[in-house]
Amino acid sequence: MAELLVAVQAKRPLVHQLANYVTANDCANIVLALGGSPVMADDPSEVQEMVSLASALVLNLGTLNERKVESMLLAGTKANQLGIPVIFDPVGVGATNLRTQTAKHLMNEVRITAVRGNLSEVKTLAGLQASTRGVEAGDDRPEEATALVRYLAQRLQCVMAITGRQDVVTDGDRVVLVDNGHPLLSRVTGTGCMASSLVGTYCGVAKDYLVATTAALVTMGLAGELAATEAADIGLGTFKVKLFDYVSKMTADQLEDGAKTTFA
Amino acid sequence: MAELLVAVQAKRPLVHQLANYVTANDCANIVLALGGSPVMADDPSEVQEMVSLASALVLNLGTLNERKVESMLLAGTKANQLGIPVIFDPVGVGATNLRTQTAKHLMNEVRITAVRGNLSEVKTLAGLQASTRGVEAGDDRPEEATALVRYLAQRLQCVMAITGRQDVVTDGDRVVLVDNGHPLLSRVTGTGCMASSLVGTYCGVAKDYLVATTAALVTMGLAGELAATEAADIGLGTFKVKLFDYVSKMTADQLEDGAKTTFA
Amino acid sequence: MAELLVAVQAKRPLVHQLANYVTANDCANIVLALGGSPVMADDPSEVQEMVSLASALVLNLGTLNERKVESMLLAGTKANQLGIPVIFDPVGVGATNLRTQTAKHLMNEVRITAVRGNLSEVKTLAGLQASTRGVEAGDDRPEEATALVRYLAQRLQCVMAITGRQDVVTDGDRVVLVDNGHPLLSRVTGTGCMASSLVGTYCGVAKDYLVATTAALVTMGLAGELAATEAADIGLGTFKVKLFDYVSKMTADQLEDGAKTTFA
Repeated sequence: MAELLVAVQAKRPLVHQLANYVTANDCANIVLALGGSPVMADDPSEVQEMVSLASALVLNLGTLNERKVESMLLAGTKANQLGIPVIFDPVGVGATNLRTQTAKHLMNEVRITAVRGNLSEVKTLAGLQASTRGVEAGDDRPEEATALVRYLAQRLQCVMAITGRQDVVTDGDRVVLVDNGHPLLSRVTGTGCMASSLVGTYCGVAKDYLVATTAALVTMGLAGELAATEAADIGLGTFKVKLFDYVSKMTADQLEDGAKTTFA
Repeated sequence: MAELLVAVQAKRPLVHQLANYVTANDCANIVLALGGSPVMADDPSEVQEMVSLASALVLNLGTLNERKVESMLLAGTKANQLGIPVIFDPVGVGATNLRTQTAKHLMNEVRITAVRGNLSEVKTLAGLQASTRGVEAGDDRPEEATALVRYLAQRLQCVMAITGRQDVVTDGDRVVLVDNGHPLLSRVTGTGCMASSLVGTYCGVAKDYLVATTAALVTMGLAGELAATEAADIGLGTFKVKLFDYVSKMTADQLEDGAKTTFA
Repeated sequence: MAELLVAVQAKRPLVHQLANYVTANDCANIVLALGGSPVMADDPSEVQEMVSLASALVLNLGTLNERKVESMLLAGTKANQLGIPVIFDPVGVGATNLRTQTAKHLMNEVRITAVRGNLSEVKTLAGLQASTRGVEAGDDRPEEATALVRYLAQRLQCVMAITGRQDVVTDGDRVVLVDNGHPLLSRVTGTGCMASSLVGTYCGVAKDYLVATTAALVTMGLAGELAATEAADIGLGTFKVKLFDYVSKMTADQLEDGAKTTFA
């Protein structure tokens, strides 16, 4: 993973994000914090040109509408043609028909490189019953998650990541458990979206997308741990600021030493 | 009020917000800071499903457009059917015809639980002449405000709150004056929107919406006072961070002890 | 420049921004930090009324779509009729046809008061070949920039500003070089947008738009220098917070003493 962080800092990959307007600013800043270069554009008339300049594409289902669905399909298929990795964050899928249908549509039309969601969202993707309670939902049971995510990864032929108390990442073959993180991460909006942005940034310089996705989750989790050390007693405003501080100051050594990963 | 804060922390009410894109991130984070769970969705095709999952709905007139007007009507009427409280923040009403007509339309079609605005905005709602100067406008004269807000509350059969140097909250019968707050709150964008988000969060666990609305304004005002103690000499960036810190660390005792409320 | 800061604080100019949703919150808060009053509205049905209340209009090409193109033309022509200064930030122009055509369209239909962009963006405006790499692009060579920006200022009869390691501002006659700033400013999203918001705020109280634009770039650059002194070792989250702190605490004396301007 350490070499991927070095590569991001050296190559500054351009990450095109079709973000939601709630977390777009944070998703741009987290890419910059890691060392990448963010660009946002979501109109059907310009997404294909924009993604052509990029090293990775991140599709985020938050604050969805018809215009953005069209843009996601256009950007995704273009990225596929150009061999640019496509990261999919199915925010709130299962909560509404629009999100569920869009997710299905995207997974049918676009070859996804990596998916990052919570357990509830990934369950919905798997067509299983899951009671989705907004976008902060899904109290994650890693045992249950592992089998599910592996099945999906094999079927979609992509990297699947479920984030929760313990993150599970798999390409259908290898399975990595990530124990980095802190409960306060779930008390700041957009930390899931930001994790997906980091997946995009690492995938922009990587060949092994399992390692890239793992690096992103370790980075976010580790920054959360460090931020909590300083800010847990102060409050959520400071915690969020520290999160960006620690991502921006993350070194290859720190990432290597701080990673709590297990190959299952 | 203290018991409402405890209830928010215990029940984590899901608050569906039709927010504006300028302050959406802050409106999500302030709900999380208090202990609630935010969800944003603003497309006509999904708002009815989303609000069905929620404990409260917040309608915010900022960065308005036709699509969102339709969504607000759909979400509002659905919330009414399900008995979910509807909070209305008439951002910038009176400044443009679109906002004024939308406000009228909403008040005709949707049964509002609570309205929070500044004096200028509430005057417009009352059909009075008010020179609205953008969304930060309305230098508030509490004496004038009290009669106005009481009249409106009776006519709309809802809780009305005018925020300013002194906040006035009424259900048409009881009137509460809130003297919490700090001038710096008007120097950060979205503190009005965030106050409305807090009204939504408290209303999500309350039966007495007058008390819930009061609790929200006390929480915001008190956090502003505490933040100013630390940050007034440092600057507005730090002040905003501290605002989230203090909302997230607010205890029932602190809320009870710090409240400056008078029953008029 | 110092007298302009005093004027902003005294008159609190209302700045109407057609912002992008990635940086809208920061663009509102930076106007408030300087002492102005921000308002955001981007629907064709209300922008003409809103801009009529304002002292300046800022048009930002980020997260563009057809609806906003129409709104920019309507707001811009209305501002022209009323003599309200129009600031244009051509975010990412050259990256896509939509942005390039919109920029051309705007420059044909609206009389622009001041343009602020990076070298790559301004090159595109000049119809020159420039390899645009997203919105963070354009490693700026001030020598090259000066001739270009002067030519454009004369042709468009407006103030042109290129920001980079050294900023260049000109009205086609006078040329000012600004050496304030810090490399970390390019590691936070929206610092370019925010600089344009400050140009709008100063232009809202100024007659000499060259001086107003220079004051904005000095303010942003100086705040960046001061923020870096405190935050460079801490990280980008703290740096961004400090940026707002220092803009909000900027005094006339500080601005005068800290300005690194050269009349070329």
